Amino acid sequence: MTLLLSRRDLEFLLYDWLDAESLHSEHSRETFDAVLDLAAEVAAEHFAPHNKRADAEEPTFDGGRVHMIPEVRKALDVLAQTGLVASSTELPHVVSTAAFAYFQAANPGTWAYPFLTIAAANLLRAHGTPEQVETYVEPMVEGRFHGTMCLSEPQAGSSLADITTRAEPQADGTYRLFGNKMWISAGEHELGENIVHLVLAKIPGGPPGVKGISLFLVPKLLPDGRRNDIALAGLNHKMGYRGTTNTLLNFGEGAGAVGQLVGPEHGGLACMFHMMNEARVGVGAGAAALGYTGYLKSLDYARTRTQGRATSAKDPAAPPVPIIEHPDVRRMLLAQKCYAEGALALVLYCGRLLDDQNTGPDPDRARLLLDVLTPIAKSWPSQWCVAANDLAIQVHGGYGYTREYDVEQHYRDNRLNPIHEGTHGIQALDLLGRKVVIQGGAGLALLREIVAATCARATTGEAAELAAQLDAVWDRIVAVTARIHADPHPERLADATTYLEAVGHAAVAWIWLEQYLACGDRDEPFHRGKRQAARYFFRRELPRTGPQLDLLAALDRTTVEMEPDWF
Amino acid sequence: MTLLLSRRDLEFLLYDWLDAESLHSEHSRETFDAVLDLAAEVAAEHFAPHNKRADAEEPTFDGGRVHMIPEVRKALDVLAQTGLVASSTELPHVVSTAAFAYFQAANPGTWAYPFLTIAAANLLRAHGTPEQVETYVEPMVEGRFHGTMCLSEPQAGSSLADITTRAEPQADGTYRLFGNKMWISAGEHELGENIVHLVLAKIPGGPPGVKGISLFLVPKLLPDGRRNDIALAGLNHKMGYRGTTNTLLNFGEGAGAVGQLVGPEHGGLACMFHMMNEARVGVGAGAAALGYTGYLKSLDYARTRTQGRATSAKDPAAPPVPIIEHPDVRRMLLAQKCYAEGALALVLYCGRLLDDQNTGPDPDRARLLLDVLTPIAKSWPSQWCVAANDLAIQVHGGYGYTREYDVEQHYRDNRLNPIHEGTHGIQALDLLGRKVVIQGGAGLALLREIVAATCARATTGEAAELAAQLDAVWDRIVAVTARIHADPHPERLADATTYLEAVGHAAVAWIWLEQYLACGDRDEPFHRGKRQAARYFFRRELPRTGPQLDLLAALDRTTVEMEPDWF
Repeated sequence: MTLLLSRRDLEFLLYDWLDAESLHSEHSRETFDAVLDLAAEVAAEHFAPHNKRADAEEPTFDGGRVHMIPEVRKALDVLAQTGLVASSTELPHVVSTAAFAYFQAANPGTWAYPFLTIAAANLLRAHGTPEQVETYVEPMVEGRFHGTMCLSEPQAGSSLADITTRAEPQADGTYRLFGNKMWISAGEHELGENIVHLVLAKIPGGPPGVKGISLFLVPKLLPDGRRNDIALAGLNHKMGYRGTTNTLLNFGEGAGAVGQLVGPEHGGLACMFHMMNEARVGVGAGAAALGYTGYLKSLDYARTRTQGRATSAKDPAAPPVPIIEHPDVRRMLLAQKCYAEGALALVLYCGRLLDDQNTGPDPDRARLLLDVLTPIAKSWPSQWCVAANDLAIQVHGGYGYTREYDVEQHYRDNRLNPIHEGTHGIQALDLLGRKVVIQGGAGLALLREIVAATCARATTGEAAELAAQLDAVWDRIVAVTARIHADPHPERLADATTYLEAVGHAAVAWIWLEQYLACGDRDEPFHRGKRQAARYFFRRELPRTGPQLDLLAALDRTTVEMEPDWF
Repeated sequence: MTLLLSRRDLEFLLYDWLDAESLHSEHSRETFDAVLDLAAEVAAEHFAPHNKRADAEEPTFDGGRVHMIPEVRKALDVLAQTGLVASSTELPHVVSTAAFAYFQAANPGTWAYPFLTIAAANLLRAHGTPEQVETYVEPMVEGRFHGTMCLSEPQAGSSLADITTRAEPQADGTYRLFGNKMWISAGEHELGENIVHLVLAKIPGGPPGVKGISLFLVPKLLPDGRRNDIALAGLNHKMGYRGTTNTLLNFGEGAGAVGQLVGPEHGGLACMFHMMNEARVGVGAGAAALGYTGYLKSLDYARTRTQGRATSAKDPAAPPVPIIEHPDVRRMLLAQKCYAEGALALVLYCGRLLDDQNTGPDPDRARLLLDVLTPIAKSWPSQWCVAANDLAIQVHGGYGYTREYDVEQHYRDNRLNPIHEGTHGIQALDLLGRKVVIQGGAGLALLREIVAATCARATTGEAAELAAQLDAVWDRIVAVTARIHADPHPERLADATTYLEAVGHAAVAWIWLEQYLACGDRDEPFHRGKRQAARYFFRRELPRTGPQLDLLAALDRTTVEMEPDWF
């Protein structure tokens, strides 16, 4: 049995809550369901089975060539044959996010190849010339070419201002690139006919810092079939995500790697950031998917593994009970349910905003809301779905710590998510330092308005109580945000991470109230479970924000005042 | 450079705070310092260097024989030559706990062999016959024989009542054992001349449940040199702690494994529990040591790695700064300092209680305090020093996620600690269900009294403010404890884990106030750092207990009311 995601939950989120059926007049629910069916099947039959082997036998290289287990190529070939990736450009984002989550749950290491290719193709489609699109994007969505994003350098991880890769303009309009790129996932392999590297570099003479960064398309194989001047300098050996080849690439050890400019000169960061929301929501979706599959596996284990006695049974000769009978196990399962289902709902909501941004009645509004939610949709699942995987291990006891079970790998794989595509701390600075202040604070105001609208729909009974609790937390967030930004201290953003975490919990509480309301008056076990999870979140998770907001309101300086030599 | 523990901090804790010099009139501080020097040196030179290799090349077996890298044997031989283990029986526990923490930081996988041997030897010394002590304990402390603890079975992890291994009495007074034991660390290897298994089993006809458990000494090699009837049935492949052979052992596939009774018939659990405090504090010490070394390594990284600009520098051409200049990095370092130093101080305090229990003026009082603190000393470091290792990874960014750096292994290794020697949930039930109620609640009353005495010493200024905050939390704990136990609900212990976590944080806050006071009026950077860490803990960690105690006081039933079919 492959426990990846709950189809019942996906349908609840897509149709009962997010009204995905209304998104595209030419697509019916049957189309969406068929896509979900296909994704679930391919993920379960072609991606999940080699997840462990890809972890145990990570890629190696010799003579510049990368070797990996054959199942990866086979899975990607099957995926290409289905046309899922190519057709995803026709589907609503909210549906493709759900469909792709099956792959992220089944095998994030193998899924990284199409994930990066899709992101690179989308970027080229948005900013490339028609010729670049024709030459590169078509083969990418067909699965023949692959893509990468080459941002980081060994000396510059989060700090793109410090990249030193340079792009020398040539007489024929192309550029020659020289520099070293670090942490390049899928940087070298033989899974397709070509690899399209999208590379950030600086054209000499441009402005310093991030304003001098341009974006280049640098293919592994040039149009004439020769190898470009790109050398694989090493593989990184990671704790998880081992199936994804992660490389150090040297561009231009010889005459320079031939590249084409994408978008305007010195406009590279803006092009890259154009796709950043989508990529970051994608990371959040991957974290949610791993949290989800770990939850389902520990739930299955808890239902079948017997140990100990029910609380009421004092007789030591009574038979052991399934461990789900123990309240502490139910606590660990409920917490995982809150984290995994809450995270998945959050990223699907953001997928819906991507759709609204493209086809909705008010694209600017959707874009603004997505801007402010993106650091949360990236970081909250990355933090709390690792916590979910931690609990999945704990439910399994000693077995969970072994590689005979799946959950320890999920925990290791998921730990990458708070690091890549902008670390947790970078997301925090993005939220507090940029997203809640741009446009005179319109982003936060809009989010507050959306939350208030949800609360206003919760007019009676328990829903109204939850809404009152949520409204009060959000009022505090607005007040605390103003207070922080009124602080004249130069390090007023010092506690951005605490802020991110408090706002994240408040946002997911709102998502849970939304789900509570989406249950309506239906009362099947599924809906009872949703309501109980909402209660759990409001009683046991949302109160964490109290001390966090107290700390932020106090403009605490403990970290700022700690001198480096006091450690 | 091998960054294991801070010697300065150890001396502060041992001498400035715990007054270790007063413990043994025949030992001077010079003796203790020499032991710490020796331990630090052997750990750094013989244990740390193969920590990574032992992780990458885990033990294998064929034909019942276990193969492992040769460095393990070499390190243990060096250790035996130093006489450190043998002499540790003469040393105060508080000193040997500190000395052994170097090994736990350097290489927990290799250290597990002597750790288990020491525990088994101590158990035999306490409960064995003089002949058992002479035959087995002497070679064990000399490092020639090794020891194991065989408690768990495949169907019975945390639930010892359900073990089915049986011990058939023989005419000559020995027993023949039949059964399967799971998760047996160091269960089979060729690191010494013999392995002494201490095995829990049931003598047929005894009482059901835990009251029918007896303890047996079952050597791998019988006195006549023949192999006992113990078969290695398999190795477990773990996420971490890979250097420690972890086995499934079959006792009695043939005529039965020959064993000797240790202690009284049906008194096995009591014998085992006699040593449980020490073993559990040892697990906490191991967790603290891994948290500590990860902290020191990320501190070192943060001081040398440059990236980004200081908050005040707006010029993108300004040179990058060491990342310790960034407040969010200092936050992650301060949190680690709180967790690692707080955890180490807590387990050393418990080490001191072990000494007081043996040689102090009021052994019963020391014993009672140790009883109530043990589940905390086991679980708090196990939880929060994994959190410390998580932050150590995050400080390193992408590098921290690779196996080229140490911290990802610490994170994986440390994740075992909330599972073995009684899971987190078992510790919680031990604390709330047993330790705070035995002797009419005398344990909790004593702990409250000790905390109050510390607070009473904090009479002025900031210390008095911290004390007032701490006193208030502890008053709530006492009230909440009474409320829980007055609850007639059969599942009143359902939130034992939340209770454990709240009391744990309150206990470590007390430990930080103790350290604050132990600084006196000294004001070197070391003491400023201790005080700042205490502030951090009181401002940012202790407030977590607020929502936890609110929840406990409300006797919340969310987890109890969640029906299994609602998931």
